Amino acid sequence: MTENISVLGLGLMGSALADALLSAGHHVTVWNRTPAKADPLIAKGAVRAATPAEAVEASPLVIACLLDYPSVHEVLQDTPLAGKTVANLTTGRPGEAREAASWAAERGADYVDGGIMAVPHMIAKPGALILYSGSSAAFERHEQAFAVMAEARYVGEDAGMAPLLDLAMLTGMYGQMAGFLEAAAMVTSAKYPLKEFTTDLLIPWLNAMAALQPDWAEKIETGDHSTEVSNLEINRAGMENLVRAFREQGVKPDLLLPMKTVIDQRTARGLAHEGLSGLVEELYN
Amino acid sequence: MTENISVLGLGLMGSALADALLSAGHHVTVWNRTPAKADPLIAKGAVRAATPAEAVEASPLVIACLLDYPSVHEVLQDTPLAGKTVANLTTGRPGEAREAASWAAERGADYVDGGIMAVPHMIAKPGALILYSGSSAAFERHEQAFAVMAEARYVGEDAGMAPLLDLAMLTGMYGQMAGFLEAAAMVTSAKYPLKEFTTDLLIPWLNAMAALQPDWAEKIETGDHSTEVSNLEINRAGMENLVRAFREQGVKPDLLLPMKTVIDQRTARGLAHEGLSGLVEELYN
Ligand SMILES: NC(=O)c1ccc[n+]([C@@H]2O[C@H](COP(=O)([O-])OP(=O)(O)OC[C@H]3O[C@@H](n4cnc5c(N)ncnc54)[C@H](OP(=O)(O)O)[C@@H]3O)[C@@H](O)[C@H]2O)c1
Ligand SMILES: NC(=O)c1ccc[n+]([C@@H]2O[C@H](COP(=O)([O-])OP(=O)(O)OC[C@H]3O[C@@H](n4cnc5c(N)ncnc54)[C@H](OP(=O)(O)O)[C@@H]3O)[C@@H](O)[C@H]2O)c1
Repeated sequence: MTENISVLGLGLMGSALADALLSAGHHVTVWNRTPAKADPLIAKGAVRAATPAEAVEASPLVIACLLDYPSVHEVLQDTPLAGKTVANLTTGRPGEAREAASWAAERGADYVDGGIMAVPHMIAKPGALILYSGSSAAFERHEQAFAVMAEARYVGEDAGMAPLLDLAMLTGMYGQMAGFLEAAAMVTSAKYPLKEFTTDLLIPWLNAMAALQPDWAEKIETGDHSTEVSNLEINRAGMENLVRAFREQGVKPDLLLPMKTVIDQRTARGLAHEGLSGLVEELYN
Repeated sequence: MTENISVLGLGLMGSALADALLSAGHHVTVWNRTPAKADPLIAKGAVRAATPAEAVEASPLVIACLLDYPSVHEVLQDTPLAGKTVANLTTGRPGEAREAASWAAERGADYVDGGIMAVPHMIAKPGALILYSGSSAAFERHEQAFAVMAEARYVGEDAGMAPLLDLAMLTGMYGQMAGFLEAAAMVTSAKYPLKEFTTDLLIPWLNAMAALQPDWAEKIETGDHSTEVSNLEINRAGMENLVRAFREQGVKPDLLLPMKTVIDQRTARGLAHEGLSGLVEELYN
């Protein structure tokens, strides 16, 4: 089904999204603060809006992909939003998404927030994922158009949920990256070929370790942190050894140190018999 | 080919190793400080040695799997090591392994060091890996026996290399675990089902991100940290947003903070245009 869709913000990501919608045959109206960025899309059949208000007027579905939430407010504030659906695919924090949802509701608009788990060149290709949260009615209405840009996954009525899960996934990535960087420094310091280490040893190992995460998740959900395999006492000793080996090798273990601190902290509470999953309890305020 | 092999140390791991060798038909002699732990292996056909010296005498290949390197020295010091091959599968630091190799050489023994990437119940099953380094001649002589316990991978003449790569893999795991724990705290704080998040969103994402590591490795090997996708300036802003979102959500971002520090540090050196791979340069002394 062909829809009228407006896209506000034609940076790298907004342009990729608009392009995907155009290629799927939708009627796409575009607006960007710097008008020249619209040119390639106009050449492909998009309609140019002179102002954000004109873009909002043109379509029931308005996709915003701007720098940040303040720029979304700035762009949408004087537009006729009543009766429209705003899909805000700008990256932000859960609190900002919840505020934007209320702001849209006051103006009579349906609101869905989106977290894009892809870089622009992955858009419309397998592997790209966008998380959506907020109005389920609005999501269902436009699900087919969303699916053109990336796998579209709805994660709940709380508009903050998509950005929250987006940030949680980024968090997982930063942790994995930190581990990779420390491992890379260690391996490089010993002049072992890093690419070989990464491909033959590290990646299969990390994938095997990631496969254990559903079990860790279950322990966290039930609060039962017992273990038969590798308790905190073993991990405390292992981590101490690790940090010492790093220093002997001339490599700073800085990215690992808070993991050591939190293991020591929980062990000091008399919970040395628990597994690593119990560490999550140390992370709540 | 059936070999005579002695195993010293019958803790959880040593027992699993001896059991695998027995099951494969080798003549296995065992010794443990606390003799009772040998009983199940004796029942399966192993020969009991009354002393470490008796165990060493019995076989050309002596596998040690004890608590730590000091206990290996203690156990082996008064044994007739000349002409033997010592395969030390005790976990330790690269420096300890290098020392043990010299120590064995002084006594006329060949030495290989091993890093066991498995828990005891994985031994002799697919997925278990043991890294070996040190004497390549000794490794080749006993490779078939080693392969019975786990996939056996030789990583070089430097006896410290197996423990070093072992520690580097553990490092990668601790980083991934730190990221998982922070993500889990975030998701739990929002009452989203953690197991669903882990299985449907986090694991596929982490596996996709791990698949990028050979590219990161290449950048580190060549020292060319340029990027077209996600430079340090974008990561700096993203990390700031992340940390703020954690605090707003009542979750401590402690395990992520050194990653933020090192991004800020490298950005402050005027390298905001580089990618994340450049951070490795901040980890050398
Ligand atoms: N690129 C990625 O890999 C990626 C991945 C996931 C999520 N995202 C998110 O997608 C969003 C857009 O990213 P991008 O890569 O497209 O960034 P970008 O190329 O830097 O584009 C930023 C866009 O925001 C507009 N803008 C900034 N401030 C504005 C203001 N005050 N008023 C009006 N327009 C304003 C820019 O307009 P001008 O052209 O006039 O400057 C441009 O259209 C961001 O929230 C980003 O976090 C990006
Ligand atoms: N378990 C794992 O998941 C795992 C994984 C990878 C590597 N490893 C490594 O494998 C090695 C053994 O681990 P494990 O799980 O078998 O540990 P364990 O069950 O605690 O066994 C420790 C062994 O060391 C012996 N021992 C300790 N101090 C000694 C001393 N001073 N003199 C003589 N013997 C001594 C113990 O003898 P007693 O029986 O007399 O106490 C026992 O045989 C360690 O280096 C460990 O890091 C273990």
